[in-house]
Amino acid sequence: MEPPAPPRRVTIVDVARHAQVSTTAVSKVLRNAYGASPEMRAKVRRSIDELGYRPHAGARGLRGQTYTIGVMLPDIRNPFFPEILDGITGRLADTDYQVFLGPGGCNDEKAEARVTEAMIDRGMDGIILIAPVSPRAHIEHVASVVPTVVVGRHGHSPVYDTVTDDDVTGASLVVGHLADLGHRRIAHIEHHETDPTRIAEMPNAQRADGYRQAMRSFGLAEEIDIVSTTYTQQGGYDGAKELLARRRPPTAVFAGADIVAMGVLEALTEAGVSVPGDISVAGYDNTTFASFGPISLTSVDQAGHEIGENAARLLLERIADRHKAPVQIKLSPTLVPRRTTAPPLE
Amino acid sequence: MEPPAPPRRVTIVDVARHAQVSTTAVSKVLRNAYGASPEMRAKVRRSIDELGYRPHAGARGLRGQTYTIGVMLPDIRNPFFPEILDGITGRLADTDYQVFLGPGGCNDEKAEARVTEAMIDRGMDGIILIAPVSPRAHIEHVASVVPTVVVGRHGHSPVYDTVTDDDVTGASLVVGHLADLGHRRIAHIEHHETDPTRIAEMPNAQRADGYRQAMRSFGLAEEIDIVSTTYTQQGGYDGAKELLARRRPPTAVFAGADIVAMGVLEALTEAGVSVPGDISVAGYDNTTFASFGPISLTSVDQAGHEIGENAARLLLERIADRHKAPVQIKLSPTLVPRRTTAPPLE
Repeated sequence: MEPPAPPRRVTIVDVARHAQVSTTAVSKVLRNAYGASPEMRAKVRRSIDELGYRPHAGARGLRGQTYTIGVMLPDIRNPFFPEILDGITGRLADTDYQVFLGPGGCNDEKAEARVTEAMIDRGMDGIILIAPVSPRAHIEHVASVVPTVVVGRHGHSPVYDTVTDDDVTGASLVVGHLADLGHRRIAHIEHHETDPTRIAEMPNAQRADGYRQAMRSFGLAEEIDIVSTTYTQQGGYDGAKELLARRRPPTAVFAGADIVAMGVLEALTEAGVSVPGDISVAGYDNTTFASFGPISLTSVDQAGHEIGENAARLLLERIADRHKAPVQIKLSPTLVPRRTTAPPLE
Repeated sequence: MEPPAPPRRVTIVDVARHAQVSTTAVSKVLRNAYGASPEMRAKVRRSIDELGYRPHAGARGLRGQTYTIGVMLPDIRNPFFPEILDGITGRLADTDYQVFLGPGGCNDEKAEARVTEAMIDRGMDGIILIAPVSPRAHIEHVASVVPTVVVGRHGHSPVYDTVTDDDVTGASLVVGHLADLGHRRIAHIEHHETDPTRIAEMPNAQRADGYRQAMRSFGLAEEIDIVSTTYTQQGGYDGAKELLARRRPPTAVFAGADIVAMGVLEALTEAGVSVPGDISVAGYDNTTFASFGPISLTSVDQAGHEIGENAARLLLERIADRHKAPVQIKLSPTLVPRRTTAPPLE
């Protein structure tokens, strides 16, 4: 069965005529360019809606725009990423850009290279990389080819913008909260990291660092106890098992991410350890999982929605002027205490 | 700063020379076509890896292939979809196809139309629609333009393939399990559905139907009690509140999806109702959330991984021969009893 012949396409000329503006004005609105007034935007948008005009990606590709933005997601199971994504799609809802997500794989440099190359290859206009683990050189290569914003990875670069959370402060909020409750044996589960560049740039490394600094500042330097696994549910499970096997187990566990805390809670439930009766647990990210009533996990809110919005805004600016000065945005986290943390028994 | 000039691209001719095969053979392997032996595939793959050959999507686009597959996801927060996605990417890992996800929005026909048009517009080679809510006519329009497989929606069509779970059987497994435990007042929370076509085709409607049939077959016709909300956490929360307000609340709640059960558990926790002491709760989908120790939710396993694998396989077959006869695959679900269901007190 052959598809029926498509009806004649509505063109930019039709839109301009209908809106009684120039085609240049329509093009400006479509490109989200400076110099289109809000009234002009509204008028053109109305005509676009009424006529059902849809820019043709193929044709746009020939002039260098595909109105496509790629978002590389490392792990679709981590409940923090939908928050960021909502912020991105929310900011782009009013534009002609379509977002496509590329699954990047968890801590998988090869998968990241594959998906970023695929995005470049499809002529995407801009890319948002969420918590990439690839070497800086690869990210700079990507950014030299296509406008790029990096989310959840610290460090400056002349070629891309970054949006991060202040992870050192976030970790210190957790340690301060637990110390205030009276805990001394506060352990941390970190994401194992050996790459020297990444140690300076990755949120996980900064959280571990913030934990160390805060423990020292609360006079708990001798109680510093870090288990290295991964930022996954399994990593949390394995880390908790390791901590429970200690001669003197901790009275509180600071998991580096909510998904890690999920694994911790799983292991503690299995071992018959009560939370927060025997052990307090805190996460990081303040996902919907943390706020879920039966769990009610103390966590750090790093404002994923705001992170996503900022990333999309910076990307639109960089698409409009790819040689602009790089911008680093660092947002301030807040602590959300819930039912999984309480004073220690002893 | 201008990007550096790219190095000369490795071409298909280089690959053929290196693998000592014809360019036609390389092309066959790239297109995943019939007639390439496993040995040939391995040889060509090795050369592709060693030379770092990457087919150019733009060039491929000109000959009608972009090696891109679009997957429309209705709700990135529903923990069932990563299971399907793993099955899809697993099946495609060995091919040259790159998967991009388009967020379709929850029960949002306009968002679905936008994302499917965007996929067509970018020249994607095939599309997998997960639980689409759009009118059949729209889905058939999409399928008439690009090879399409529909997941999680029943009904035949001459132009697309479907992969579904036997939702009627799944629902009867839950009712049977609860009735065997001694429950009579078994309520169901369904996804509100008024569209007459969708009532026949949507998994949610089939689950509600399966619930009704099973209640009758267990002699519980008079106890049929359905609350209509949505397949979201909020929908489960609202549904449970409504059921708790009944003069005689149910002793068991069958939530139409695990994410609905999450909301039910939230509302019951808030109301101080113990699970399964006061009320048993069962979900559907057997997500990682259901198997999560501290929750341990009784659920129905509809083999999301297998659903995804089958969808990807059917799509590759349809890309190879877009006029082939349509295929409907219906998988059989199994019950996974866990700690949220137990005999009623009274």
